[in-house]
Amino acid sequence: MQLSKDIITTAALEILDEYGLQDLTIRRLARHLNMAAGAMYWHFPSKQALLGAVATRILDAAGPATVSGDWRADVVARSEYLRTALTAHTDGAEVVSAALAAGTLEHSPAADIATLLEPVAIDDTTRGDAAATLLHFILGATVDEQTARRAAAAEALGAGPAGTGDPGEAADAAETEPAQPARRLRRGVDIIVAGIGALAATGA
Amino acid sequence: MQLSKDIITTAALEILDEYGLQDLTIRRLARHLNMAAGAMYWHFPSKQALLGAVATRILDAAGPATVSGDWRADVVARSEYLRTALTAHTDGAEVVSAALAAGTLEHSPAADIATLLEPVAIDDTTRGDAAATLLHFILGATVDEQTARRAAAAEALGAGPAGTGDPGEAADAAETEPAQPARRLRRGVDIIVAGIGALAATGA
Repeated sequence: MQLSKDIITTAALEILDEYGLQDLTIRRLARHLNMAAGAMYWHFPSKQALLGAVATRILDAAGPATVSGDWRADVVARSEYLRTALTAHTDGAEVVSAALAAGTLEHSPAADIATLLEPVAIDDTTRGDAAATLLHFILGATVDEQTARRAAAAEALGAGPAGTGDPGEAADAAETEPAQPARRLRRGVDIIVAGIGALAATGA
Repeated sequence: MQLSKDIITTAALEILDEYGLQDLTIRRLARHLNMAAGAMYWHFPSKQALLGAVATRILDAAGPATVSGDWRADVVARSEYLRTALTAHTDGAEVVSAALAAGTLEHSPAADIATLLEPVAIDDTTRGDAAATLLHFILGATVDEQTARRAAAAEALGAGPAGTGDPGEAADAAETEPAQPARRLRRGVDIIVAGIGALAATGA
């Protein structure tokens, strides 16, 4: 049973990488595995349940959260591991966003971040809010990064929007990547970490 | 020409509100307007171009960014206007995320936020990073809010994931909304604003 679930999840990741989230359907997955769609539903009763397993697998690649004693460094490292894991698969950030919102993730990435924030002198509600802020920022930034990369690729193939203005935009998007998104993520995390530090200092 | 574009954009918003982003297709839009799909492509050469116009209309509802002299209050107010505009339409946050990444928005919401940050003593690169951080956070949080609301509605209809654990989750999602997402957004913006203030204080 667990083995079957693992095999199906692996196949779903292959389809995701090759075709993207829009084409990850139970029907296509069943065909890919040469299984009846009905048998698939026995393991995953809904597309949401399947996306939960795929998203959990994507996040597992970030490894467990590690505590070094320096919470700022831990949060920065965690953010970079999460970005690497989310962007390792086509539409990975979008899949994880969807599973997070649907409540189908096996482990909460926000709870992991909250653990890293334990040394900070803030109350538990603020800690939860700070972890959610970091996670929402990381997901917003990585969804943007992946969508921009796909749009630039489509435009390079001539399938993108015609006459939408600046022809340099796609080139910029392709050229500045991946250094620019990594730098942007790091700067955003630095700003949020500074904000968490400021809240702790003022006891807010 | 502009009139036709406006009419098509209005119809696209109606389809979005009724069926969601996944079912907003050029074909359905043409049928809705009793137009040939070819005529539609004359106004919007691609789905990306159409989404750019729809996203621009969604953001326009947030009104222009206003400067009061208190940048912290201005950023908080802007964030709340943006959340209201993004969540006023089905999948609104997702449509705007997609258009932002594809570079098809008419005005840059990050540039508006950067304008509000002009009184802060930080260099232009940091100002741009801070505005991008706020925007990515707002989009991440509102996409999560809208996706969770849709998942809870689907679960309430019995179409959602079966046996994914806590049956109270959907009820919680429905019950705590919209107060909880509004509070979460406000707390996240407060943390980021505190971080921007801390960067200005240290001259980073």
